[in-house]
Amino acid sequence: MNVLKNKIKAEGVVLSETVLKVDSFLNHQVDPELMMEIGKEFAHRFKEEGITKILTIESSGIAPGVMAALYLNVPLVFARKKKSLTLTEGVLTSKVYSFTKQEENTISISREYIQKNDRVLLIDDFLANGQAALGLIDLVKQAEAVVAGIGIVIEKSFQNGGKIVRDTGYRVESLAEIESLENGEVQFKEEEATVS
Amino acid sequence: MNVLKNKIKAEGVVLSETVLKVDSFLNHQVDPELMMEIGKEFAHRFKEEGITKILTIESSGIAPGVMAALYLNVPLVFARKKKSLTLTEGVLTSKVYSFTKQEENTISISREYIQKNDRVLLIDDFLANGQAALGLIDLVKQAEAVVAGIGIVIEKSFQNGGKIVRDTGYRVESLAEIESLENGEVQFKEEEATVS
Repeated sequence: MNVLKNKIKAEGVVLSETVLKVDSFLNHQVDPELMMEIGKEFAHRFKEEGITKILTIESSGIAPGVMAALYLNVPLVFARKKKSLTLTEGVLTSKVYSFTKQEENTISISREYIQKNDRVLLIDDFLANGQAALGLIDLVKQAEAVVAGIGIVIEKSFQNGGKIVRDTGYRVESLAEIESLENGEVQFKEEEATVS
Repeated sequence: MNVLKNKIKAEGVVLSETVLKVDSFLNHQVDPELMMEIGKEFAHRFKEEGITKILTIESSGIAPGVMAALYLNVPLVFARKKKSLTLTEGVLTSKVYSFTKQEENTISISREYIQKNDRVLLIDDFLANGQAALGLIDLVKQAEAVVAGIGIVIEKSFQNGGKIVRDTGYRVESLAEIESLENGEVQFKEEEATVS
């Protein structure tokens, strides 16, 4: 997705060989026009999948998620992320380890918002180690719903999450795939799944 | 805003005389069409205010905030909410006490995203005790920017936050004003600032 790649090139800050900061348009400040384009692109890529719900994680998944939900005309659910969680009735939980923050979070959703047989599109801002995506997949499975696809804004292809998540057999669509952050520079993968 | 009030009537769950649960369309599951209408309404009410940024707090402010940002054609910034925060350079922080959760959170923004003289519209999902709004006002003041208005999705008018925040002199626009949750029923205030 060229508009996204151009934004990453222009405003992304390479903090190390593994860390890309996109605080100016996605993770802290949010560019609403770009989010709309991202939502439209996810809707386009998954339009044949019979999506009935979108599931994301607070907080950075919400803006792209709500736009995708708007274009697919389905509700968005955002999983809550907490360091610890008192077990509550009617709540599905999964543990997600963050390599970046070196801590384990419990993500949770109310059982009532993902129903059996829902066809769920998972949306997240980054795919790096794949732990968040696996946690979301786990929540959908616990709800006896179907993972209909996984939409990622930025995939760090040099980390192993993409392989881990694709190995589960689900379709993963990443709008920008980063091959390397070496020498302080963002290098994208050449091939594009869709012209955009 | 009638579409919002109807949604609250249909799906809001009165948990007590002070607590209204709107998890099905705002705080956990999100109705993207309704968020679009809310964004449009905020943009309409504040269109003469020369807004240059919208500021909200994660997580429930993000969906209405990004839609308002889209219609006002300005960036959204969401403040981070953490129980404790290591002081970092270039970060503005304010303390917000939550009566609901009985805990103090530190909310924070990067100094670079709210600039001196920015005209900032504050957006939040609820106005109850006013503490979150006061925290956002404090962040804008620290940034030497201007609070150009405050947009609230649901105001619990029977709590004192509305008075506290209006007493600061800022214009507050609430899309649904709830007068009472007594007897398990949502009672709205009669008057409407704008026909919608």
